[in-house]
Amino acid sequence: MLHRIDHVGIAVVSLDAALERYAETFALEVVAIEENPQQGVREAMLRLGAGSLAPASYVQLLEPLSDDTPVGLFLARRGEGLHHVGYAVDDVARELETLTAQGIELVDQRPRHGSLGASIAFIHPKGLHGVLTELVQAVGA
Amino acid sequence: MLHRIDHVGIAVVSLDAALERYAETFALEVVAIEENPQQGVREAMLRLGAGSLAPASYVQLLEPLSDDTPVGLFLARRGEGLHHVGYAVDDVARELETLTAQGIELVDQRPRHGSLGASIAFIHPKGLHGVLTELVQAVGA
Repeated sequence: MLHRIDHVGIAVVSLDAALERYAETFALEVVAIEENPQQGVREAMLRLGAGSLAPASYVQLLEPLSDDTPVGLFLARRGEGLHHVGYAVDDVARELETLTAQGIELVDQRPRHGSLGASIAFIHPKGLHGVLTELVQAVGA
Repeated sequence: MLHRIDHVGIAVVSLDAALERYAETFALEVVAIEENPQQGVREAMLRLGAGSLAPASYVQLLEPLSDDTPVGLFLARRGEGLHHVGYAVDDVARELETLTAQGIELVDQRPRHGSLGASIAFIHPKGLHGVLTELVQAVGA
């Protein structure tokens, strides 16, 4: 079950420029800047709803580590913009089983490590009307 | 201030096909199907986190009413996929004032009516690294 939108991932040419723009414009708190070589990105997580007790949602900014990475190819093809959406779930592995049983095409057959220590998996955009979709099981969930 | 991600808007060729796929795959509750001639779309709102007491977030599916609408042009240019992101705010009008003072380019200079009776406004993608961005003030907020 999808609990809520956890984040939107935005492909950008320059992480520093995008960070400054998003953090300043919306007064967002930068909670992490990480390099993820497996995904070929340098990324930042900006938290929405500072001070709220509700579960957080995030803007994730993604700068490709090189042109031949997935985000690099996305930028070359479409330019900067929305790259994927991530939904919060309790158990990524169980969701993947359900999706597989439904015949939904996956990118990741099993969970892997994502931002902020989460366990994540991507679903292929083909089966979801063009939307690259990520499932996010937060640390401790 | 942005409280959380309220929804992602997904441009689709057939609302009926996308509705069936999203509602079935993720067991989402369809809370509204509306035609919005002002925006040139027929749309559906699918609620995430059924039964949760936390504020809801939504998947919004958007089918263009004709090819020459913004969503119709988006589909012709890029195909199906993520079209925009909407953030929940307390007061759209006040946010627009703040953004204008910051020199951020707006699509809507003042709030207008959106899905589920909300008051909404769009921010131009140009100033936000290619992301068409919506501010959403829910009914009663």
